Amino acid sequence: MLFIDRLIERIIETKNPSVIGLDTSIGFVPPRIRDACEQELSRAGAGAHLRAAVDAEAIYRFNREIIDAISGIVPAVKPQMAFYELYGQYGAEAFVKTANYARHRGLIVIADAKRGDIGSTAEAYADAFLGPGVKGVEGSEGGEGGESGGLYCCDAMTVNPYLGIDGVKPFIDNCRKYKKGIFVLVKTSNPSSGDFQDLELASGGKVYELIADRVAQWGQGEGLLGAYGYSSICAVVGATYPAQAKELRARAKRVFFLVPGYGAQGGGAEGAAAAFDSAGLGAIVNASRSVLCAWSHERWGGKYAHDDFAAAAEAEALRMKSEINHAINATD
Amino acid sequence: MLFIDRLIERIIETKNPSVIGLDTSIGFVPPRIRDACEQELSRAGAGAHLRAAVDAEAIYRFNREIIDAISGIVPAVKPQMAFYELYGQYGAEAFVKTANYARHRGLIVIADAKRGDIGSTAEAYADAFLGPGVKGVEGSEGGEGGESGGLYCCDAMTVNPYLGIDGVKPFIDNCRKYKKGIFVLVKTSNPSSGDFQDLELASGGKVYELIADRVAQWGQGEGLLGAYGYSSICAVVGATYPAQAKELRARAKRVFFLVPGYGAQGGGAEGAAAAFDSAGLGAIVNASRSVLCAWSHERWGGKYAHDDFAAAAEAEALRMKSEINHAINATD
Repeated sequence: MLFIDRLIERIIETKNPSVIGLDTSIGFVPPRIRDACEQELSRAGAGAHLRAAVDAEAIYRFNREIIDAISGIVPAVKPQMAFYELYGQYGAEAFVKTANYARHRGLIVIADAKRGDIGSTAEAYADAFLGPGVKGVEGSEGGEGGESGGLYCCDAMTVNPYLGIDGVKPFIDNCRKYKKGIFVLVKTSNPSSGDFQDLELASGGKVYELIADRVAQWGQGEGLLGAYGYSSICAVVGATYPAQAKELRARAKRVFFLVPGYGAQGGGAEGAAAAFDSAGLGAIVNASRSVLCAWSHERWGGKYAHDDFAAAAEAEALRMKSEINHAINATD
Repeated sequence: MLFIDRLIERIIETKNPSVIGLDTSIGFVPPRIRDACEQELSRAGAGAHLRAAVDAEAIYRFNREIIDAISGIVPAVKPQMAFYELYGQYGAEAFVKTANYARHRGLIVIADAKRGDIGSTAEAYADAFLGPGVKGVEGSEGGEGGESGGLYCCDAMTVNPYLGIDGVKPFIDNCRKYKKGIFVLVKTSNPSSGDFQDLELASGGKVYELIADRVAQWGQGEGLLGAYGYSSICAVVGATYPAQAKELRARAKRVFFLVPGYGAQGGGAEGAAAAFDSAGLGAIVNASRSVLCAWSHERWGGKYAHDDFAAAAEAEALRMKSEINHAINATD
């Protein structure tokens, strides 16, 4: 089944168009988990390598508790590579273990890597994250081509389009070949996303609108366009720019949106709702810190201790689901 | 000393404004090296993990021979992250070992990672690659802040600007704080780089020109602008677009250029020469495959066997040095 159909079916099953970002900073992890890792690993070495190994393992164990708490609630998780790269090879292993554990628990895994490069380099990134799956790796698809996939193997990833179509094509090729997906950066959620994305073009329209049109073009055709009318070539459109999200929803009808910026970044459910179509489909909303650190949010009035982070994440994931569904229905 | 001054001094010392890209594909590695790794590691495990471990270690050993051959000739190397990510945690370790070995041999290391993200995520990438150095890691700078740096710790890295200034600022902050450098993508060397970079703006000029102006602005000020008049906030400008390189050289006088596209991508020395100033400074030209795979190039008429790849790389690095210096002098 195509990536986009798997994603939409899981969204329909869970009645939840949201995804939890695993942007796990070591500061989010309660001391009990990190201390246990330190005790277990202290024989493994010393210095910077030991610290990196301990922090990375602690992050993986934190993620595992989060995944256990939310796997029945959300269709997908989105680990953010930057927080794993901070720990070199130990972080890489924590990423691999997190992605495999999440897939093993039935979650779709979107690698938030924002990669973009050219020629054989873009091919290497595409094979690293969107390969066919690796035989003998738990949670991986295996299959015919299973010998050549990278260990990071995920269901989808984010891609930066600044290098043009030959920077994106290798990712699209792997989407078609291995039934994977990409989310191309179109209009990002950060305050200065307009610096370059909002530039007015001499030919009319803005840079991000032209990129949205290209993404729509790239997503046409066999092996990409799914049963629900959406393509596996998707876009990132921030919840913090609802007017632009609404305009893009009308403009690129077959492009599915990943919507960051909800929660800690200040985007409201109403902003996110602008990214959905009239049938309540067409987008998935991401929240990261607001779920991972829900235990400390004033909303819960001190109900949760740091050690209860997973229970708090579950409560927040349910609250978010309800809030987003409510906002989508109110928009219809 | 600022990154840009260290780089320029090494260029002056070696009389060589070129950098070797370590875009090492496993296909470049002679069977003797891979076989030795396979024999040594066969007790380590099985399946996909063993294959990844063997390939990654073979790539590191190949890189080590290349580094030994070229370290007296070139000022810098530029490992390309994509080729390491393909092997998950094993590739990450090969990257760390390659970067440390190169620094240990006196080379400046530019991580070609093309990262770009927002807020705390961009900070994590900046700390991963442009941290203060890690105590106890060979070739690393250590120093005061030495506890918090990532294991990937390099001298500089490439950065994608599509997310706007708050996607670049955390990298600039680390450049100032830890005397590191960045190369922001402005006009890339690939055939379709014009898809978005060459778009004409309603306000006049093109997208890449406006980005070049921003890079020039970002590079002003204390802690960034060096003794030779260039800034540690640098730009990527492809050798395959000599007219644009010439125009950008005149436009952004304090922005140092990393020039990819020479060699295997088809950019000539004359194209690269357009990126230099009248004093013969202001740029560094990258070649990857044409050096790593020099043994197989028709230029050497079968003189080198695959096992002689390092000797061939040395000969090609010297030939490239001479060709580029000749082209720069011809332009003056």
